[in-house]
Order: sequence, then C-alpha cells, then structure tokens
Amino acid sequence: MSRPAHRKPEYHKINKDLFVLTYGALVAQLCKDYEKDEDVNKYLDKMGYGIGTRLVEDFLARSCVRRCHSYSEITDIIAQVAFKMYLGITPSVTCNNSSRTEFSLILDKNPLVEFVEELPAGRSSLCYCNLLCGIIRGALEMVHLAADVTFLQDRLKGDRVTEIGITFLRKLDEKKYRRKK
Amino acid sequence: MSRPAHRKPEYHKINKDLFVLTYGALVAQLCKDYEKDEDVNKYLDKMGYGIGTRLVEDFLARSCVRRCHSYSEITDIIAQVAFKMYLGITPSVTCNNSSRTEFSLILDKNPLVEFVEELPAGRSSLCYCNLLCGIIRGALEMVHLAADVTFLQDRLKGDRVTEIGITFLRKLDEKKYRRKK
Repeated sequence: MSRPAHRKPEYHKINKDLFVLTYGALVAQLCKDYEKDEDVNKYLDKMGYGIGTRLVEDFLARSCVRRCHSYSEITDIIAQVAFKMYLGITPSVTCNNSSRTEFSLILDKNPLVEFVEELPAGRSSLCYCNLLCGIIRGALEMVHLAADVTFLQDRLKGDRVTEIGITFLRKLDEKKYRRKK
Repeated sequence: MSRPAHRKPEYHKINKDLFVLTYGALVAQLCKDYEKDEDVNKYLDKMGYGIGTRLVEDFLARSCVRRCHSYSEITDIIAQVAFKMYLGITPSVTCNNSSRTEFSLILDKNPLVEFVEELPAGRSSLCYCNLLCGIIRGALEMVHLAADVTFLQDRLKGDRVTEIGITFLRKLDEKKYRRKK
C-alpha cells in the first residue's frame, strides 16, 4: 500500500465532517480491540506516527517553509501552517521552559471532537485525539527532530482547554533541519 | 459519543491527505482484526452506514437540495452535490435498467485510494472503499429510501474504472422523500 513515486500529489480540500466521523469510527474500533485506554492511546500514537512520516513531505512541498533556526520557530510553523493546512485551526503557542525546548499548543477549538460530547463510558483515560500527537512526532522525526508529544490537557476530560505538549529532546542541529534541495 | 443538540454545525474544509491516510489506517486495522475480506467489507459498510445516517442532516441543510421526483434525480444529487461536497469529485452517472431503479456512479478519480498502489497481499476480495457504499446506504435510508449499494468495478482490482452500483429497492414514495420543514 505504498504511494507510487511517479504520481504528483494533487492539492484539494474535503469536507471535514466525513473525516471527523471516520476518525470516530477508527477510535471506536480500537476501543473494541483494546481493553486498556493506554493501549488505545499507544496505538493511536503509532498510527499517527506512520501518517506523520508520510504527510511531512507533501507538507514541506506545499507550505514552502524555510529553514527554522529555533524550536520556537518550528512550533510556530506547526501551529500556524500545519494545523491550519490540515485541520483548519490555528492553536496558540506557549513556551514552557527557559531553555526553550518545551512548548504547548493550545487548541480552543478541536474539529476532531466536534461530534463527541464526552468520552465513552469506562474510557476516562482515553486520549481521543492521540493520533495528532503521533502525527506531529512522526513528521518531526522525518526532519531529524526527536520530540515527545503528548496531551497535557483535554476538554473531553473536563479541562478548560485542549493542550498538546511538545518537548524537543536534542539540541537543534541546524545542518540537519534543512529541506532537501 | 453523541453530538450535542445545541451545537450548530460549522462548515469548513480540511486537507484531504489527512483523511485519506487516516482512512488507510482504519482499513489496515480492520484487516488486522478480521481474517476474511468479506468481514472487513461488511464492517466498513456498517461503519459507513452509521456515518451516512449522521452526515445526511448536515448535507440537506448545507446543500439546500429540493425535493426529488425520480431516482435519477436523487442519484444525480449524490454524484454532483454530495460527492463534490465531501470528496471533491463528481462521478458520472449511468442508468442501468429500463425501470430506472438501478444506477452506477463512475469514479474516474478516487481520492480515498490516492496513497494506495494495490490491495494488500492476500486481500484480493477487499472492497477498500466500502465505507462509501455504507455512507450512501445510510444517508438514503434516513430519507426513507432503501437501496443496495455495492462496488461493481474497482481500479484497485484491475478494473478500468471504479463503479458504485445503487439499486433502489422500493417504488419512490414522493410524500416521504421530503425535507423536514
């Protein structure tokens, strides 16, 4: 199921409801498959990772993002360009430590949960949108940036906002974070 | 996981690649769960049915479709309005019988398989996009139209085009196929 190398990607948009409901079906299926929330979360992250590694090439091609010089710049690109492009929203960004390696994306709106009122019964530890963390992690890894990406807050769990934490794990090596010419 | 009644749906588009790759992850998960292609197909159809029953209300609200007077008109709406709105493509329509109850949607392009070169090994009977059939069936049922919806041809199986067959099962009862005022 690999992408043919010769095919040029074509850019177009689709209605988000179809995606949101299909994502809901995927999460429901995983909840059926795995008893423990932690396993569902892990699996969503793993699936997302695979998706992120495939999305990043098109993202770089389409977004025309230039070389970034700091983790702060990279996180801004994720929030302002990637989230906007793929989910139609722009989370705000906060930096969480003085060495500027830990950031949060604050989502006031989250289209992925638009049809979800609450977590399913008995699933209080489910990170419903964990696919997003995996996607970010996978995409970053493809540009040689190792990061931990996890939900720090989740409105589905009663928090006021939804917050994704990104912790970059290594010193930024500028030579490596460069688009292939 | 039901939709809150008070929330007004917000219309916006998202990038299709995220959807297409997430759909691929869903199909891969079902292939892991079910050994027989027939079971995967059945499950995709069932999931799609659920999605169709939820999408149809928004579709009717957004599309401002008027009352249809024939199955032919209904099929045209599916092809020209619904496919365009949700997948960004417009299949062509053919009528397959003289009583005008059997139609085909011919998809020259199918965004759902954009990242798929071929069916997974040992999965030759998989209807990869069977979710679509379920969605159409579910949406039609919500407007009191019973139909069989199946793939008749599939480019992933070596056919020249992808063809979805819709067979309406009852005489059209015009009174029932009306949008709620």
